[in-house]
Amino acid sequence: MKAKELMDKDFVYISKNDKVVEVSEVMEDIRRFTCPVVNDDKQLIGWVTSFEITKGLREGNEKISEIMSSYEEITTIHEDAPARLAVIETANNKFVTLPVVNDDNQVIGIIRSCDIVKLLSTLYDIKVSKLYKAMQNQLKGVTWEELMDASALVSKKTTGVKVSPEEYEDTIMNSTFGEAIWATGGLEKFFAGLISVGELVTARKVGRAKR
Amino acid sequence: MKAKELMDKDFVYISKNDKVVEVSEVMEDIRRFTCPVVNDDKQLIGWVTSFEITKGLREGNEKISEIMSSYEEITTIHEDAPARLAVIETANNKFVTLPVVNDDNQVIGIIRSCDIVKLLSTLYDIKVSKLYKAMQNQLKGVTWEELMDASALVSKKTTGVKVSPEEYEDTIMNSTFGEAIWATGGLEKFFAGLISVGELVTARKVGRAKR
Repeated sequence: MKAKELMDKDFVYISKNDKVVEVSEVMEDIRRFTCPVVNDDKQLIGWVTSFEITKGLREGNEKISEIMSSYEEITTIHEDAPARLAVIETANNKFVTLPVVNDDNQVIGIIRSCDIVKLLSTLYDIKVSKLYKAMQNQLKGVTWEELMDASALVSKKTTGVKVSPEEYEDTIMNSTFGEAIWATGGLEKFFAGLISVGELVTARKVGRAKR
Repeated sequence: MKAKELMDKDFVYISKNDKVVEVSEVMEDIRRFTCPVVNDDKQLIGWVTSFEITKGLREGNEKISEIMSSYEEITTIHEDAPARLAVIETANNKFVTLPVVNDDNQVIGIIRSCDIVKLLSTLYDIKVSKLYKAMQNQLKGVTWEELMDASALVSKKTTGVKVSPEEYEDTIMNSTFGEAIWATGGLEKFFAGLISVGELVTARKVGRAKR
């Protein structure tokens, strides 16, 4: 996935000659805390946040050029860069927004932290039962009941708590990948549990075939 | 994981009698676009964002009480609520910040979208090789070389591209879970591939034991 697939194309840019008062109204209307400043060729030349705006309003600055951060201070991401770089930049620098530029340094979109949260949470919100269905599909010749039976056994071994295959099925039908990771204590542990289940049903299947 | 484990305790709250000008300076200093308004018992009674501040500065409002959003308009999350609810609220409503309250409706922390990005990206940034190490740990009696050999075979079967076990090892040493999900086309597919590998090495192991 590339940065341009994650960005929001619906953004507003301003000019360095725009008036601070008018820009403040625009940013309130569109509910944006940050805004790129571009030249006539739509190339990025500066950046304003609500912090520059409030300071500018207090101190009576008239034009955006008087208050904007300079180009050198702005972190950008190229449209073809991997989307995960935008995620890492946002996480490490606590950015609210990150401008996406093309080869000509024109701003073509904005990546916002809330959009990243939406993307990542969608991946996390996949139901655990869907992963089990993928597992069953992959392990040809294994029934859903055998899978639940093996899962209940592995779960008992790992947690020490006895659970029936039916109870186990209920749990995975109602929980998500994100919940499962948090419940088991991390991706590696969740994953190790699933591998154990796969191992158990495969061993049983191979055992059956040899008989 | 609970909301309180995800929240940032380092935040500033203001009073409805504070002056708009002074609050604008504080928000610039601490670089926060939003701020909870509390009463003398630290209970949440209102909310201000930079949008109310810029409007207030333009229109000459003096006190926070004149510009703040009322309590009814604020979305909060209880400290003991699951952290993933905060993630879902943030994703669905494009929140920048979400106040965390206790049973007495006191604000005890703030969850910011950039903190959520940091948490989720940490989970995603785990190296694929670590998952393979967990897999090898789980599948007792399987060597790393056998695992790479099986992976190269499964990869060839899935993608049609021939790859040596050494090349496969290079790839997983340098890629993350997040990249792997995006590269394979989703969690289920990535997961199905790993199950195939587990199945292959387990079948070989059981085959060896029967000989």
